[in-house]
Amino acid sequence: MSGGARVAGGGGADAGRDILQLMTGLFPICRSITGDGLRETLSILKRDIPLEIREVPSGTRVFDWTVPKEWNIRDAYVLDPRGKKVIDFRRSNLHVVSYSIPVRKTMPLAELKGHLHSLPDHPDWIPYRTSYYREDWGFCLRHTDLLALEGGDYEVVIDASLAEGSLTYGELVLEGRTKDEILISAHACHPSLANDNLSGVGLATLLAGELAKAPRAFSYRFLFIPGTIGAITWLARNEKTAQRIKSGLVLAGLGDPGHLTYKNSRRGDAPIDRAAAHVLGQVSPPGRIVGFSPYGYDERQYCSPGFNLPVGRISRTPFGEYPEYHTSADDLEFISAASLGDSFEKILRILDVLEQDGTFLNLNPKGEPQLGKRGLYSKAGTEEMALLWVLNLSDGGHSLLDIAERSGLRFDSIKKAAGKLAEAGLLAEKAAGGTGR
Amino acid sequence: MSGGARVAGGGGADAGRDILQLMTGLFPICRSITGDGLRETLSILKRDIPLEIREVPSGTRVFDWTVPKEWNIRDAYVLDPRGKKVIDFRRSNLHVVSYSIPVRKTMPLAELKGHLHSLPDHPDWIPYRTSYYREDWGFCLRHTDLLALEGGDYEVVIDASLAEGSLTYGELVLEGRTKDEILISAHACHPSLANDNLSGVGLATLLAGELAKAPRAFSYRFLFIPGTIGAITWLARNEKTAQRIKSGLVLAGLGDPGHLTYKNSRRGDAPIDRAAAHVLGQVSPPGRIVGFSPYGYDERQYCSPGFNLPVGRISRTPFGEYPEYHTSADDLEFISAASLGDSFEKILRILDVLEQDGTFLNLNPKGEPQLGKRGLYSKAGTEEMALLWVLNLSDGGHSLLDIAERSGLRFDSIKKAAGKLAEAGLLAEKAAGGTGR
Amino acid sequence: MSGGARVAGGGGADAGRDILQLMTGLFPICRSITGDGLRETLSILKRDIPLEIREVPSGTRVFDWTVPKEWNIRDAYVLDPRGKKVIDFRRSNLHVVSYSIPVRKTMPLAELKGHLHSLPDHPDWIPYRTSYYREDWGFCLRHTDLLALEGGDYEVVIDASLAEGSLTYGELVLEGRTKDEILISAHACHPSLANDNLSGVGLATLLAGELAKAPRAFSYRFLFIPGTIGAITWLARNEKTAQRIKSGLVLAGLGDPGHLTYKNSRRGDAPIDRAAAHVLGQVSPPGRIVGFSPYGYDERQYCSPGFNLPVGRISRTPFGEYPEYHTSADDLEFISAASLGDSFEKILRILDVLEQDGTFLNLNPKGEPQLGKRGLYSKAGTEEMALLWVLNLSDGGHSLLDIAERSGLRFDSIKKAAGKLAEAGLLAEKAAGGTGR
Repeated sequence: MSGGARVAGGGGADAGRDILQLMTGLFPICRSITGDGLRETLSILKRDIPLEIREVPSGTRVFDWTVPKEWNIRDAYVLDPRGKKVIDFRRSNLHVVSYSIPVRKTMPLAELKGHLHSLPDHPDWIPYRTSYYREDWGFCLRHTDLLALEGGDYEVVIDASLAEGSLTYGELVLEGRTKDEILISAHACHPSLANDNLSGVGLATLLAGELAKAPRAFSYRFLFIPGTIGAITWLARNEKTAQRIKSGLVLAGLGDPGHLTYKNSRRGDAPIDRAAAHVLGQVSPPGRIVGFSPYGYDERQYCSPGFNLPVGRISRTPFGEYPEYHTSADDLEFISAASLGDSFEKILRILDVLEQDGTFLNLNPKGEPQLGKRGLYSKAGTEEMALLWVLNLSDGGHSLLDIAERSGLRFDSIKKAAGKLAEAGLLAEKAAGGTGR
Repeated sequence: MSGGARVAGGGGADAGRDILQLMTGLFPICRSITGDGLRETLSILKRDIPLEIREVPSGTRVFDWTVPKEWNIRDAYVLDPRGKKVIDFRRSNLHVVSYSIPVRKTMPLAELKGHLHSLPDHPDWIPYRTSYYREDWGFCLRHTDLLALEGGDYEVVIDASLAEGSLTYGELVLEGRTKDEILISAHACHPSLANDNLSGVGLATLLAGELAKAPRAFSYRFLFIPGTIGAITWLARNEKTAQRIKSGLVLAGLGDPGHLTYKNSRRGDAPIDRAAAHVLGQVSPPGRIVGFSPYGYDERQYCSPGFNLPVGRISRTPFGEYPEYHTSADDLEFISAASLGDSFEKILRILDVLEQDGTFLNLNPKGEPQLGKRGLYSKAGTEEMALLWVLNLSDGGHSLLDIAERSGLRFDSIKKAAGKLAEAGLLAEKAAGGTGR
Repeated sequence: MSGGARVAGGGGADAGRDILQLMTGLFPICRSITGDGLRETLSILKRDIPLEIREVPSGTRVFDWTVPKEWNIRDAYVLDPRGKKVIDFRRSNLHVVSYSIPVRKTMPLAELKGHLHSLPDHPDWIPYRTSYYREDWGFCLRHTDLLALEGGDYEVVIDASLAEGSLTYGELVLEGRTKDEILISAHACHPSLANDNLSGVGLATLLAGELAKAPRAFSYRFLFIPGTIGAITWLARNEKTAQRIKSGLVLAGLGDPGHLTYKNSRRGDAPIDRAAAHVLGQVSPPGRIVGFSPYGYDERQYCSPGFNLPVGRISRTPFGEYPEYHTSADDLEFISAASLGDSFEKILRILDVLEQDGTFLNLNPKGEPQLGKRGLYSKAGTEEMALLWVLNLSDGGHSLLDIAERSGLRFDSIKKAAGKLAEAGLLAEKAAGGTGR
């Protein structure tokens, strides 16, 4: 009870601006699931939060997977028959298929075309493509540029290395009063894409800073990892630790103009699922709750049956529902400080429910206590109703979140009422531990 | 099984007229939560039913509360600067704030206004106000009359007493075949207000008379009490007895033109909740079922967590949903014998479900018995369906109410079918006790 | 697991034609709940499937019932005052009330009319009437023909016999790998009526032929019985065997133009109820699921409380919802090979769910296995989703049907995915037995 998470004032506007600023600095870096771009990204985050940087050698077995070779790229381009640079990695790191093997070759257009990716429906956008686990190479370009290519021999250069090295991820634990943990996980493996998922990386960083400011009921574990292989690697190295995770959120796509969407954990009724449903049900317009499915971001790994961790995912518009997803149109123009700030504030409110929940006992359970003589009687509807609901349901079998859900009142109103009643000696905490502890 | 509660014929029209007549006699009396008006009211009820009158001394501790001083009023008025009686208690007992302390004073209009209450939105209605637990005084008046008051000195007289005495309530127990009780509770503390709650007082009185006519499966306890403090006082003096209450109804607001509304007990699935939902679901137009909330009439006390009694509330239009509530417009014109009679009949039907419910065993459970050879086969849809449902579900795990709920047929059709089948030797009662015993 | 039921290709078109052809041969026969018409019908079915014909003597006690006398009819007619045959059994066997006692009598029209049945609302249709358990006689005729009858004496002849004999039914068991049984029951007691229930008789016959073609997980028991008394007789003679029935379907009314309707077993959540809901929920337009009620065909007997067998009923338009029901308009024109074939195919798919269901264990439950390196990764939405759902939910607590229900994917997609994963060594069967075993 009474941890230190605090709801950001002003709809999270300051936080939104700070997140956007952090993202702006990270945006140009060419990240992938391994390599120096990822390392540089984490080292920038480390300026703001005391991140531990982990390195896991290529070839390490992690459950059914193997940590891949490390990929680094210096330059890549395509010269047309006249020697003109028609594709240039330095203009956009999306131009190269991530994990492309080194290439230095001249070939006719026909052969080159087998390695080119474009979006006919969005001819001005560059797609984002990867080939992590199958050795291949390729370029992505605007469809209009593809159409403009003329016949002849092209010189193709990908100055990259794919070699033994390591997989890098960042980890930070904020100790709380208990060892029970809340996991915050963001994938940090995408190159110059803003919403997916620099928004999650940036928001998680600010969130860590915010939560560090005051004591916490829970311990918080932040992971900045490459998607899929990073989550699997962490789980493989932390099987026992993973059992401490009582709630978790995968953060992804938190800056676009859509409204918030929470995807349930595999359990569907875990504390995080209930807290998110409560908070998103109270905001206007209400957020959307979608059922678990074994597709998506790293919740796929956390919610695999051998772990079945209570980890949900929070996004604004879910990936696949906006055309900018995985294209050059997912840039810093696509997102806004306002959306980031709103996401930040709502996520804090969800965590606040977990932090602040508790179960109380009405010390005067027979009939109502006389609120008037204690100065607690008020005509103000919601405030009095919150007092009456807390008294009526504080029989040891209902937590504050239970009471908020049944009454239809906001968790913070219920929490405030409980505080007043406890102060008046009418309520006592039943036992340590609220939702999810 | 087979108690004596009986559904009133003719839609309760006779009962409605009788209730209205009783209310008409009680209407002029100035009641409060203590005092002679309440005593006189109970003594009038005692002409019809053998009520026990209880007196609980002022100062008695009842859980978190103390029985207040007794309040009695003889007269009250306000004289304007010209000596004209501009407010006169003898014209309407709503004019004085209930529990006003004695006053005899002259004061300028400006000072007087701090003690005047009116309804700007309903300028011709006198509001009803109380000040039970904070010593104060005041007058209520039509807003039009308030606006007509001219400057100058006013003589204010409240000839009342607030002194040691007692709190009065009426109690009646009709013994049944078991000590399991059904509680019928009506608050009797309001002055000249008809729907809230002379309708409840009047209906409960006629109901006691009706139930007394025949043997009962349950014992019935009727309480005519001042709101809140009366319920708390009864509970404090009857903690052990309260445990016998297996079902209960708070009666309030049963004469207005709206349709019936049942408010669930805190448990939400108690026998009374199911019986009320069944009966109100079968009438046309169907009644409304609303969830429990810790606000309202004395169900607040009965459903406090230390008791959690299975007590619901039955009203027509819930208080707060009709503007006449707690004003002089809640008079004998606002209510009707038809509404009172309809409420009476439906309440009897709800109690009838509790009285008549039971669990039976199909004595020929393998295949259907041959109804034709017993003269039970009929082409009439509902009647045959009731027979088939009772046979099919009388496996010892379903009561008649369960069968009514699942089949969508009326409880009385199911009960009648069970009677016929028992007569034909096809059904036997499993064990004593139906819903709620 | 992996029984032999197989979904018919081509929407069951061939099966539909075969069923219609069989029905066409059976249509003219005058069946009743006993007698030679029923015997002849069963002997024709025996040409296609190795049916056992059972004979149960008249007078045999079967639970609350007694096997009735056997009824046979040779001829029946009515001659008008001029000697003209105005009703002739040889033109339609519906003209005689089934189980009419022998009559040879002359009577005035007024007396005759007490024995005549017609349909004023459908004046050109002959109704179907019976009098099995009350000795009586009667004729059914077109209402237009009834109105044309002139005054005078009529000669009435019913050349029938009602005498000691036996009740006949057909039974076939297809042994499966287990003794757990699926019951397929069709009533075969109606004279020249096509949808009710030659459609059920014909479909059950083809179904037996189809299921016999390959090994089965379950044993299948087919019953071709007179309605009500036949089911009761079988249950009375097979009380112990009945306990082996893990799922069952009453087949009736499967050839009309309506869509499929499944009526739940009394249990409501039996494997057959879930399998039918799943299959009918996936077809377009979706079939209808209706709740159990103790009225209808022989599910009344199988679902009586002393047996409570998990037996549902499958029909197209339920009886009573089409005016042709139990009239001469329920003829071979009313039904179609297309409807019969569609019913056949969907019923096979429902049985296929029961046959093919099973519970598997993900052998790589921590994180996802790497599908790509096993060639299982595909971009095709449904196929990949099926793989991911099977992996995610194969924790030993979910059967394939559970997974199909939760994922919203078709059972056969889920089954196919499980097969692929098992082949790749990623999945193992947990234990023998799926839904309903």
